Amino acid sequence: MAEKTKPRFEIVGDGSGLEKSEMYFPEELVLASRNRGMPLEGLRYDVTPTGMHYLLVHFDIPYVDAKKWRLRIGGLVSRPLAVSLKDIMKRPRQKLIVTMECAGNGRALMNPRPVSQPWLDGAVGTAEWTGTSLKSLLDKARLSKTTEEILFTGLDRGVQGEELQYYQRSVTIAEAMHEDVLLAYGMNGRPLEPQHGYPLRLIVPGWYGMASVKWLERIEAIDHHFDGYQMEKSYRYAQSADDPGEPVNLIRVRSLMVPPGIPDFMTRARLVQAGRVRLAGRAWAGRYAVGRVEVSTDGGVTWRDARLSKKGPRYAWRAWAFDWDAQPGRHTLLVRARDSDGNSQPVEQPWNYQGMGNNTAQRVEIIVENKL
Amino acid sequence: MAEKTKPRFEIVGDGSGLEKSEMYFPEELVLASRNRGMPLEGLRYDVTPTGMHYLLVHFDIPYVDAKKWRLRIGGLVSRPLAVSLKDIMKRPRQKLIVTMECAGNGRALMNPRPVSQPWLDGAVGTAEWTGTSLKSLLDKARLSKTTEEILFTGLDRGVQGEELQYYQRSVTIAEAMHEDVLLAYGMNGRPLEPQHGYPLRLIVPGWYGMASVKWLERIEAIDHHFDGYQMEKSYRYAQSADDPGEPVNLIRVRSLMVPPGIPDFMTRARLVQAGRVRLAGRAWAGRYAVGRVEVSTDGGVTWRDARLSKKGPRYAWRAWAFDWDAQPGRHTLLVRARDSDGNSQPVEQPWNYQGMGNNTAQRVEIIVENKL
Repeated sequence: MAEKTKPRFEIVGDGSGLEKSEMYFPEELVLASRNRGMPLEGLRYDVTPTGMHYLLVHFDIPYVDAKKWRLRIGGLVSRPLAVSLKDIMKRPRQKLIVTMECAGNGRALMNPRPVSQPWLDGAVGTAEWTGTSLKSLLDKARLSKTTEEILFTGLDRGVQGEELQYYQRSVTIAEAMHEDVLLAYGMNGRPLEPQHGYPLRLIVPGWYGMASVKWLERIEAIDHHFDGYQMEKSYRYAQSADDPGEPVNLIRVRSLMVPPGIPDFMTRARLVQAGRVRLAGRAWAGRYAVGRVEVSTDGGVTWRDARLSKKGPRYAWRAWAFDWDAQPGRHTLLVRARDSDGNSQPVEQPWNYQGMGNNTAQRVEIIVENKL
Repeated sequence: MAEKTKPRFEIVGDGSGLEKSEMYFPEELVLASRNRGMPLEGLRYDVTPTGMHYLLVHFDIPYVDAKKWRLRIGGLVSRPLAVSLKDIMKRPRQKLIVTMECAGNGRALMNPRPVSQPWLDGAVGTAEWTGTSLKSLLDKARLSKTTEEILFTGLDRGVQGEELQYYQRSVTIAEAMHEDVLLAYGMNGRPLEPQHGYPLRLIVPGWYGMASVKWLERIEAIDHHFDGYQMEKSYRYAQSADDPGEPVNLIRVRSLMVPPGIPDFMTRARLVQAGRVRLAGRAWAGRYAVGRVEVSTDGGVTWRDARLSKKGPRYAWRAWAFDWDAQPGRHTLLVRARDSDGNSQPVEQPWNYQGMGNNTAQRVEIIVENKL
């Protein structure tokens, strides 16, 4: 690699936390044009329509000829496998509705602002995945007792942080053997679309999206901790470029609302007609349940409970609703959730260097008018 | 509308055409996060997978209960209609593969840069639409002989340029009676997803996307030219804020290539291994045919013909390929197409105030290395 590439994270802003960075860089725009957040109107649906689901692609979407493609299972196994898509589809079928979120969701709302994929708040979606249990295939390959982790390699390749790499992530053997970890070939009742990992991807429910490796090509049993780029350099809760920090893993509790009223095209300012307004949205909490959702209509001074829908699938978001008597003028709405483990969304932003796991309570500025 | 909103187009840059604006505004980022370009890997497919198709939503994606929804056909007709989705689906069925492009595609590559939805080059996609002929329904409603235009109103509502509006566009009666203008309820063999206009949208093949009104609610025959915001203020080839300019209509000839080699995550710089490289992509030309595609591998000094695939559906993009002997070093690739009417893509940018119809030849910077 003779050519230098830009550093992975640039920091913009004065660090005071008081002012928002006003300007963005061309690289951020290029990333924002390729990757896509879910428009928050998508919070209306139990299952996000495929084309509305968030999407992050680190490198390029690879072209895969499924007829020639084989999933190779190797490393510390006594029976290495090379399995065709057809054979995987013949195995016992599991369906799972999973809310997936990018670990960087909310990054571009942080101040100072880490410059990378500039997510605002839409890097989330819920899909019904169809696949087969990872565990059953690992059992078939007969793992060595010395296995510590399972390493997943995708077909997408490129440079990040000046390292040439295939996208690779590992999970512990305990996590890999979790009954709900899937090798998925279907999304919302149809074959995976290319951008979502065709022909086969991993689904690790409850984890941020980086764990659910797309375009799977290779699965290896290893007897040590995998220290690749996407494990040790990226996806860390760190405070500086030199801080190794802690690994990012499970999705943190979060709630978002369907944008109330109507927008201004350019600024996305929200206009709402005075009167009773039904606020609604979704909340999710990774491997925990959503315990409570609260709404503030006065900028965070007072909070009241939203009504929660009945519990749905374990890893899926849960609907909430709240009736608001909207009076003319400007208002700041907030929503925050708490999970069954007692974790709450912060109202003040807890900053980190890579802009990971920012589950700060959503703020929505509203202009209420008597007549629209 | 008591509240002021920001101007629709802001101009950034010095106008010299020599330097690219380096910074972007938060509004652009918010728009880029909601709307989405097709990652150019999508140029591999005859028909773009639904979730990869470009998407522009002016206001919000409306929620529509299809059971209650009716398409109303009125204005200067002797038999006004209110038609259910079920009834529309019973009418004679037409399928049409259409390449659609946003009129603002390439806007963020202009200098000085019009600030609006900041498209780079991905605001394009090809879908198979299923629907019924608009003409047959208009015939059923019996148009008055004084009809000049047909006006289409969508259910999406918001503010643009300080005007509160439903999204509305008209076409001439001649255009509305074109046999390939569809009322579409299907995309790629499935019901429209909400973001693409569920339950029903217009498809005007060969026109930029703004003509293909989504979430159709009302069709009216009128005896004059409709002068609404999206006709007279937006979608104009203008040279300044005060210049009314000319209306944007048919898609201009354009060609794009699948990104060669592999990317750097952050900068999207392209790295290619030395040797023979198959460059490939698509070209399209609205209502004309693609006549010729040329590639330059030396920054536009010399050009050679690419091979064109055999002709496909009338309104669909056409594949091209070109073999390149890539030598180590930095290279600038360009591709340009010419249509059957003799129009070519410019190599130098022809600027306009709203950033419309920018079909300047694509430039791709490549770093070729001996080994990757």
